Amino acid sequence: MCESNVYLTTPNTLEEDAELYLEAVDLVLPEGEDCWRLISIFGEQKIINGRIKSMSLVNHRILFERV
Amino acid sequence: MCESNVYLTTPNTLEEDAELYLEAVDLVLPEGEDCWRLISIFGEQKIINGRIKSMSLVNHRILFERV
Repeated sequence: MCESNVYLTTPNTLEEDAELYLEAVDLVLPEGEDCWRLISIFGEQKIINGRIKSMSLVNHRILFERV
Repeated sequence: MCESNVYLTTPNTLEEDAELYLEAVDLVLPEGEDCWRLISIFGEQKIINGRIKSMSLVNHRILFERV
């Protein structure tokens, strides 16, 4: 399966220290300005406020930065 | 491999009619306001101007809408 883990960081945090926000995300849908709905393959939903900083799909990693 | 195909649509186009913009995308990186760098697993790079409308990683599909 090709879901990704979503991590959240802040402008002053090293990328390696980003917190895991939601695992096994399938759907990423915009909800508004810098606001996204994440839905995992297990049906878990979370709203994340931030900007996408990087996505590496092969590494199953999406990094958001808090705004 | 968990790369995705990137599609581009316009506000007045049906999602099914979105054009394939770049295949087998691994990296999606912000380049500025509504501007993203796409890098495929083959190293091909393309800039896309638009907003992310939806991502379904399990379906290997990222949809951008032109702005």
